[in-house]
Amino acid sequence: MDNSIITKATIEEAHTRIKPFIHRTSVLTSSSIDEIAGCKVFFKCENFQKIGAFKARGAMNAALSLSPEMLKKGMATHSSGNHAQALARAAKILGVKSYIVMPRTAPDIKKKGVRAFGGEIFECEPTLAARESTLVEVIQKTGATEIHPFNNYEVMAGQATAAKELFEETPRLDYIIAPVGGGGLLSGTALATKYFSPTTQVIGGEPAGSDDTFRSLKSGKIEQAQSQSIADGLLTTVGDKTFPIIKDLVKEIITVTDDEIIDAMRLIWERMKIIVETSCAVPFAAVLKNKEKFARKNVGIILSGGNVDLEKAMKLFASKQS
Amino acid sequence: MDNSIITKATIEEAHTRIKPFIHRTSVLTSSSIDEIAGCKVFFKCENFQKIGAFKARGAMNAALSLSPEMLKKGMATHSSGNHAQALARAAKILGVKSYIVMPRTAPDIKKKGVRAFGGEIFECEPTLAARESTLVEVIQKTGATEIHPFNNYEVMAGQATAAKELFEETPRLDYIIAPVGGGGLLSGTALATKYFSPTTQVIGGEPAGSDDTFRSLKSGKIEQAQSQSIADGLLTTVGDKTFPIIKDLVKEIITVTDDEIIDAMRLIWERMKIIVETSCAVPFAAVLKNKEKFARKNVGIILSGGNVDLEKAMKLFASKQS
Repeated sequence: MDNSIITKATIEEAHTRIKPFIHRTSVLTSSSIDEIAGCKVFFKCENFQKIGAFKARGAMNAALSLSPEMLKKGMATHSSGNHAQALARAAKILGVKSYIVMPRTAPDIKKKGVRAFGGEIFECEPTLAARESTLVEVIQKTGATEIHPFNNYEVMAGQATAAKELFEETPRLDYIIAPVGGGGLLSGTALATKYFSPTTQVIGGEPAGSDDTFRSLKSGKIEQAQSQSIADGLLTTVGDKTFPIIKDLVKEIITVTDDEIIDAMRLIWERMKIIVETSCAVPFAAVLKNKEKFARKNVGIILSGGNVDLEKAMKLFASKQS
Repeated sequence: MDNSIITKATIEEAHTRIKPFIHRTSVLTSSSIDEIAGCKVFFKCENFQKIGAFKARGAMNAALSLSPEMLKKGMATHSSGNHAQALARAAKILGVKSYIVMPRTAPDIKKKGVRAFGGEIFECEPTLAARESTLVEVIQKTGATEIHPFNNYEVMAGQATAAKELFEETPRLDYIIAPVGGGGLLSGTALATKYFSPTTQVIGGEPAGSDDTFRSLKSGKIEQAQSQSIADGLLTTVGDKTFPIIKDLVKEIITVTDDEIIDAMRLIWERMKIIVETSCAVPFAAVLKNKEKFARKNVGIILSGGNVDLEKAMKLFASKQS
């Protein structure tokens, strides 16, 4: 266990480094949400973050941590999600190239988002093997540095700054909950909690249909994700750099079904008047599912992102009403 | 012209009075919105306000301005919109009765909202005459004080506090834009601007299908609203207390079509990740329609509210895409 790689100073330095390039996002509360949940919820709105998700933090910190020589050759990653845009944006800000490997089946809107930041897209077959081999080729050809979406200490330290900001603005939190896919946000949140709010308990929210971190915590070793959930940002298996930190610092993983995710998402839309994506609703679904546990507590939730197709979201809502 | 009835001190006192009972709402910005609009837009998010709209401010201020004797007999109004809930909420907080006259055709969700705050509903036929006569009866029976949704100086002073907060948090604004229906928010915004940011120009946004304030400013006297627009919060005719202030302090009214409102609303949902109602999108639609006018300026927009049925909103979006 080497979570000491990321120290308190690492996170503070990351925060100072990325501050000029990210939003300090709002913390929102709602008495009607609190009434429904039976506790006091503080939502850290990373759906308002640059590129619409917390991923802007980690990618920016990783980019700013590279040496000028490395930076000059650009940055590369494989991602079909928010990290792709976040890395392309960081590269654009720093005036360097970004190379993004994406499955050819990725939605056009995601490709457009990457291209809008000047990112160069390399399409591949929609398998993990194809993504990885394509990325190796791209890196061999360009000399770019790989910035992994979560299994990267600078990325984790960047994601940690969201929880750090939340602690700076809220009364003592009894719990903080973040969603877990690859574990970049959850490990960062856990480290920020250790250093900036050590009495707060850290919980992960995970889709029941892709509960690899839940099972990994039970077995003590990394289990593979089944990747069956509407929470499309949380389908990856937890990483070998993120898992040791999660294992050490996270009290509990709560899993929720897709139905529970949709209900929580709709409540957030209707009561908070904000738009969150499916993956983002997982922690609040975990609260609603465990009301006794959280009763009358102060609960911080990292709302991870808001990049959702409106029509698709409405179809999910409609599926629950019929 | 007696806009001197509401002085700088009136607004400052209103703000102090209502502060414990309202949210200080976020001011949000978005570089992608700025790029689309060609100017720097500062959104004052009253969709995050208590009851989901700025109306919580005016109703609370009016309620807190009543004498204990008046308050004891309760408060009454006719409204099928956000003011009804805002007044019922203010009454509940102060432990007094509220009597709300509503057309029997008002949506169930609105009635439920009022009842959730303990408001007593009196249903009437859906005409202005029936609303007014029913309200007179209710007041005669109960001795309650009428709190008009906009044609009331305490209500106007309360609404002014939204713009006051915006000025406190933003760099010098070249323009501030509020939607106009009865004129409570626009007159309050104009007064706040006069006292707290006198170099800012005040503009009203109005639906073209209910452009009574636009025509009233041209003719110099109050013209009747046609009430034909999807912006259902802006269908009333401007009031005889609000119009003189608007006439004196508002530079210009910009009218927008329903199509333009839907486009602006969708952009706000997608880019800002927040939910706003139709009426609320009118000022941003006015900016998009007049890009040359606002080019490179700092523009403040009061986002008035977020109380919209999700399914209804999606139908509006769909109507534009087919």
